[in-house]
Amino acid sequence: MINVALLGHGVVGSGVAEIMTKSKESLSQKIKQDIELKYILDLRSFDNLPYSNKFIKDFNIILNDDSVKIVVEVIGGLHPSFDFVKACLEKGKSVVTSNKELVAEKGYELIKIANENNANFLFEASVGGAIPIIRPLTQCLLANEIEEVYGILNGTTNYILNKMIVDKMDFDSALKLAQENGYAERNPASDIEGTDACRKICILASLAFGKHVYPAQVKTKGITDITLDDIAYADKFNSVIKLIARAKREPGGKISAEVSPALIDKSAIISNVDGVFNAVVVKGDSCDDIMFYGRGAGKMPTASAVVADVLDCAKHLDARKYLSWDDAEDNYIIETTKPVRFYVLAKAKDYEALKQSFESEFKGISSCVYNTDKNEIAFITDFGKADELNSKLSRLKCDSLKTIYKMI
Amino acid sequence: MINVALLGHGVVGSGVAEIMTKSKESLSQKIKQDIELKYILDLRSFDNLPYSNKFIKDFNIILNDDSVKIVVEVIGGLHPSFDFVKACLEKGKSVVTSNKELVAEKGYELIKIANENNANFLFEASVGGAIPIIRPLTQCLLANEIEEVYGILNGTTNYILNKMIVDKMDFDSALKLAQENGYAERNPASDIEGTDACRKICILASLAFGKHVYPAQVKTKGITDITLDDIAYADKFNSVIKLIARAKREPGGKISAEVSPALIDKSAIISNVDGVFNAVVVKGDSCDDIMFYGRGAGKMPTASAVVADVLDCAKHLDARKYLSWDDAEDNYIIETTKPVRFYVLAKAKDYEALKQSFESEFKGISSCVYNTDKNEIAFITDFGKADELNSKLSRLKCDSLKTIYKMI
Repeated sequence: MINVALLGHGVVGSGVAEIMTKSKESLSQKIKQDIELKYILDLRSFDNLPYSNKFIKDFNIILNDDSVKIVVEVIGGLHPSFDFVKACLEKGKSVVTSNKELVAEKGYELIKIANENNANFLFEASVGGAIPIIRPLTQCLLANEIEEVYGILNGTTNYILNKMIVDKMDFDSALKLAQENGYAERNPASDIEGTDACRKICILASLAFGKHVYPAQVKTKGITDITLDDIAYADKFNSVIKLIARAKREPGGKISAEVSPALIDKSAIISNVDGVFNAVVVKGDSCDDIMFYGRGAGKMPTASAVVADVLDCAKHLDARKYLSWDDAEDNYIIETTKPVRFYVLAKAKDYEALKQSFESEFKGISSCVYNTDKNEIAFITDFGKADELNSKLSRLKCDSLKTIYKMI
Repeated sequence: MINVALLGHGVVGSGVAEIMTKSKESLSQKIKQDIELKYILDLRSFDNLPYSNKFIKDFNIILNDDSVKIVVEVIGGLHPSFDFVKACLEKGKSVVTSNKELVAEKGYELIKIANENNANFLFEASVGGAIPIIRPLTQCLLANEIEEVYGILNGTTNYILNKMIVDKMDFDSALKLAQENGYAERNPASDIEGTDACRKICILASLAFGKHVYPAQVKTKGITDITLDDIAYADKFNSVIKLIARAKREPGGKISAEVSPALIDKSAIISNVDGVFNAVVVKGDSCDDIMFYGRGAGKMPTASAVVADVLDCAKHLDARKYLSWDDAEDNYIIETTKPVRFYVLAKAKDYEALKQSFESEFKGISSCVYNTDKNEIAFITDFGKADELNSKLSRLKCDSLKTIYKMI
């Protein structure tokens, strides 16, 4: 009999409790051992559930019960999650979490503690909800040198952008609709400002490139200044705008990593990832592009990923999963050295001066729209070094200038 | 030191040899043990390779060398692959293969022998080339009841259909182009008649639903009778035609399984899987739709999946992977009990009679095209039971009738 304790009975936690009680027998069959949810830690009380008898309010009961071999942390945030998880790992209990903030901020430290105490620390559900990505990255693609990993890692922003693209809804209305449908929180900052996507790319980049990437190291920009004009110009350039989190191998053992809106050509399959769906693309030297697509959030999708990790822990109580990375180094993350290009929207009261400077700086450019009605020019630059492009742009005679990364 | 032997130095085999010799050190580092390719079995001679000294022609050298713990079979076909693999497993050597025919025909038997001899039998590369799908199905999605698995599992036919759709090339020209580009073999039967896709869905269905599905049990139809007219009508119905292999859970512990062309609505992300790319969709009760996308064939993508399995074997020399299924039962595979719908193209010299019978049988149908120039009607039926739809169709007064499954 393997006993499991659950920390937190929120959205994901209640899904985990549901699967583990309702499907107890089929899960036990799958791993050829009995597995049982023994405790649920939550400060609130939940009566009238078929498993109400499992609730406790004292973490120490779990910590000191040696029969509990696996602990599931789905409280979220760093406090008290970090202390709880650390204490469990130090006692040799394996821990499964869906807490992306915890893994992005403390992953290196917690994996180290897990290894020292012969326990596993698994977090498949922390990126992409139900989409299997952590395990494929660490196992299936092991024979590849990963060149790049990127994706649409936040369903809320993808839903909002999709509403702007398809229904021509402005940002505020789309956000309101997302909130009404339960896709965005009342305080949507961590989604729309890119923080959530940033945490997830930190986890993927740490795994793909072998050194911990902390959220503070990753330049992060959300979608709050994307307008319907940008969406319409992107469409003219056969592109859609998506919030893309990305990390790339750079020379000298460095990587680049960034979260920002990006234009994606409509021919790329990831441009068709709509609504609240997520997608992760992994580019390896042998496998080329592989994409993983599915529901990136939601109670049952995320809970099913957590439970799969629990089963994996149960099967490997005495074996370590090869899932680890080194600590970060100073200056590990640099600006990309690869050629880039931008979508640019330049406005000027003096349209003629803008036009002239544009034509002298960007002679022969093919993707551009002159909008004399609005005194603005939208265009896609050719590929170039970021600083050279920026210096060309600085010479445009304009009153306002907006640039968005043109990715594919 | 873990010694590995390679059976077969064809397209995939030479890729495996290349990765294992060129990246020997980084692979060893990844699994924290030295790993070495010791023998390559091939009847042909290969001089002037950096690893020419490893070639042998006698299988028994490998079989009787106890230092060889892992054997890679990439000969293809059943003979002598089956005998070789069986002999290795019986000696307790783990085996990795990319041979879909071997797994589809003999998977149950070989997994059983592997288990009895405390060895692993892994075959990630047998479906979807570099796309991780076997491991995600068996591990990441373990907390799900799989409802359905389907996909574009053959790159050759997808390339041909894509050329027909995008470039309006007819079937024969598209096939010829595929052959010229090395995407189709000189004898393309196993691709265009659906055999290859059938073997792959057998493997996926066996894993997803727990009992061996043999190719002979799966109704299989290729793409040879798809015309540019079908493609054009599909387009009018906002759909594309893809070769889809699929298996679905049915009541009473049964499943349905089939390979055939199918119309896919353009809004479905899988409709955008173009060229030689493959995609597998898994529908679970908790995770909903998850899609895996990438290069389904090719030397290096497939070889990288094989080598990842080799590394997994190396890490689990004394542990069994939970990868097994039961033997098939009689009548395990049935016709689907779920409602279906079809694209239909009916032709008749007596167009008026056709039109009248169509309007009486399919009153009020919305998706139809009357083509008086060609004396034909194309339409999408509503959802219904397959036998009821077929009996309605049999009452159409037409000289020829073609039906294609309308999937999404």
